[in-house]
Amino acid sequence: MVAVPSLFSLRHLLVLSLALNLSLILRALYHQRGEDNKWWFCFKKKMMEDADSCFTTSSTSSLHNSTREKVIDLDHGDPIMYERFWRQMGDKTTITIPGWQSMSYLSDGSNICWFLEAEFATEVVRLHKVVGNAVTEGRHIVVGTGSSQLILAALYALSSPDAAQPISVVSAVPYYSSYPSMADYQKSGLYQWAGDAENFDKEGPYIELVTSPNNPDGYRRKSMVNRSQGLLIHDLAYYWPQYTPISSPSDHDLTLFTASKTTGHAGMRIGWALVKDKEVAKKMTKFIELNTIGVSKDSQLRAAKVLKAVSESCEEENHKNVESFFKYSYNLMAQRWKQLREVVDAGDMFTIPQFSPAFCTFFGKETEPQPAFVWLKCEGDVEDCETFLRGHKIITRSGTQFGASPKYVRISMLDTDETFIQFIERLSAIQELE
Amino acid sequence: MVAVPSLFSLRHLLVLSLALNLSLILRALYHQRGEDNKWWFCFKKKMMEDADSCFTTSSTSSLHNSTREKVIDLDHGDPIMYERFWRQMGDKTTITIPGWQSMSYLSDGSNICWFLEAEFATEVVRLHKVVGNAVTEGRHIVVGTGSSQLILAALYALSSPDAAQPISVVSAVPYYSSYPSMADYQKSGLYQWAGDAENFDKEGPYIELVTSPNNPDGYRRKSMVNRSQGLLIHDLAYYWPQYTPISSPSDHDLTLFTASKTTGHAGMRIGWALVKDKEVAKKMTKFIELNTIGVSKDSQLRAAKVLKAVSESCEEENHKNVESFFKYSYNLMAQRWKQLREVVDAGDMFTIPQFSPAFCTFFGKETEPQPAFVWLKCEGDVEDCETFLRGHKIITRSGTQFGASPKYVRISMLDTDETFIQFIERLSAIQELE
Repeated sequence: MVAVPSLFSLRHLLVLSLALNLSLILRALYHQRGEDNKWWFCFKKKMMEDADSCFTTSSTSSLHNSTREKVIDLDHGDPIMYERFWRQMGDKTTITIPGWQSMSYLSDGSNICWFLEAEFATEVVRLHKVVGNAVTEGRHIVVGTGSSQLILAALYALSSPDAAQPISVVSAVPYYSSYPSMADYQKSGLYQWAGDAENFDKEGPYIELVTSPNNPDGYRRKSMVNRSQGLLIHDLAYYWPQYTPISSPSDHDLTLFTASKTTGHAGMRIGWALVKDKEVAKKMTKFIELNTIGVSKDSQLRAAKVLKAVSESCEEENHKNVESFFKYSYNLMAQRWKQLREVVDAGDMFTIPQFSPAFCTFFGKETEPQPAFVWLKCEGDVEDCETFLRGHKIITRSGTQFGASPKYVRISMLDTDETFIQFIERLSAIQELE
Repeated sequence: MVAVPSLFSLRHLLVLSLALNLSLILRALYHQRGEDNKWWFCFKKKMMEDADSCFTTSSTSSLHNSTREKVIDLDHGDPIMYERFWRQMGDKTTITIPGWQSMSYLSDGSNICWFLEAEFATEVVRLHKVVGNAVTEGRHIVVGTGSSQLILAALYALSSPDAAQPISVVSAVPYYSSYPSMADYQKSGLYQWAGDAENFDKEGPYIELVTSPNNPDGYRRKSMVNRSQGLLIHDLAYYWPQYTPISSPSDHDLTLFTASKTTGHAGMRIGWALVKDKEVAKKMTKFIELNTIGVSKDSQLRAAKVLKAVSESCEEENHKNVESFFKYSYNLMAQRWKQLREVVDAGDMFTIPQFSPAFCTFFGKETEPQPAFVWLKCEGDVEDCETFLRGHKIITRSGTQFGASPKYVRISMLDTDETFIQFIERLSAIQELE
């Protein structure tokens, strides 16, 4: 039997190692009878601090079936792993909105982005200052219904209605899988998807989407085309300390962020753009006006409260016994990436990206990138990694959707502890079986 | 001096008549000295139940300036007149959202509209049943970031990516001023604005936007083109009892509603579509996925609470001493339309639409349409009504933006009491001066 690597931090190492071994022994013993080991199931529940129901259920076979046959869906990057942190925060980020509040379309008629809540803008500026990941001075803030809407708003703002043909939109392979359909689903005459930035050789103006750290592979990026007529959109959704070392404040013409990846509040649908050029900010605002007549005030107010709590947790960390949001999430990501690397390294079937550590100005020490997705490659004979993993009931997103080879898949690292442990266990079992 | 018409309900008639006369006398007396009458200002404040500060300020001239020179902006249909009702409701519609709630993108993976909150869907169905204004059986609910996003989603869903040319989008003049730019701002190859539905004679498929009651003129509408290849989008934002008699439940293929006009919560950005065809609902959902990856959960939850309170206020009206939301808002609209008609009828300068009363199944009696906008016509020599009124510091939207004559303007009837009273006063003064 292949030795199961240690999956948890030091204090869990011994217990987990024993558990995994026991699990695999029991699996081997009971495999023919269609049974599974209840102990492993309850151990996992225990790890997730949700073990109340353990050792009370009478049917071991039903437990076996539900555990063994469960489909693990890691296709989307739903950032629900942060939920526990926000539960621990208790009432600090609870928001109360009376029925008569925030009824108007308007937030601030004197602002270019007239639907931007002042409170939210204040907390955006504050958080970037605390983290040191973006210059906000001399920028207009445009709020969006998630950063998706802001990407579309930016494409609209950077293109010209009078141009003879649509402006090309490019991004380097592997690019975020939604970029091509976002650029093309409206069959817009303003802009058009033109594929891989590295192979782009058309003359004239173009828009390049620079995602850094990149979704799906987690590497830091700069513009790949680097010609004079390029208009750049910097999608920095993952430029936060839990995912990558913060090297310096980003300082671009048009930069996008989103609460979904910053704090895990995807359901709020709140993103923001930092925009240098006034006319671009105006056009982006116009886009959102025509698209959705503004952005939910309720979510802006809630986002303000959440971002504020994050900033405060950072500010209080040094002089109170508080773990900042970024330290908490950094540690969680570090633990997961460690577990993943150990499982992957234990066999020859898979490889994952290797990153160099770098100094993080936020943590004041060297840290390693630990992206929100793993860009996993099936080695050897497996040509279609997505189909292969689906055969093992792990749902991932094929490399082909990112303009890359089907030997790659993107897998979310932000799911619940339960799902992540199941994923690690299944990956380990695959290496053992194949 | 021209007799000033009675502007308020009977109990205010005498007092208001005296006030208006006094106001005009004082205006004439003090005109040269740049002063105004504090009494009128305070009377208006009194009418707005906000008279605390009256008779305490020392500077009459500053009051004069702020009152006389204020620009009255009734261009947008910001529905803030409902705020007082929701204040009166106290905590009943206060929503509390803990920081850890609603973090996921997902609401219900088994629903076609996977980002639709079940609570919100339940309250939508319930409210339509209580009001009797829409059939919900056999319909898929698609939630949107306001009904604007749903209009775009519907255009996307009803058009074909394989068509040789964009499908024509039409609506009868006067049409909602945003329709042309909403259809064309992306220069989409899927659909294209084709103007007035009544003059549309192109062969082949088309999409007709049927707004009923119509924005801007308030009339009930049916499809104008009425050919076999027409795909209809029914925008029923104003099909609620405060604006128009409810004749029967609407029963169309694709119907849009919005919280903005129903309850006045424009800042929530919540609209919903009732969609008969499953494939259309799927495509609309796909549009919203690509556009904003769903709709704010916070606002959906808040909307659920607000719609629930409206339904309950209707259900409780009969057996408790409660005024339903619709009765409250109906009465307020009735009062405003009465005041407006009296001012308009007192001179020859303006005309406004005339409506026939009809039986309202919700109120169980005959009611008259009292639209959210007044479609006002400048009679006589005034060719450009918008510019004319702007000269009197009343900001309106020109008829030209609705595909109609510049002799018309659209004016919001949903602003605060204060602004509405100022508007009525200014309209009266114009008739007197010209």
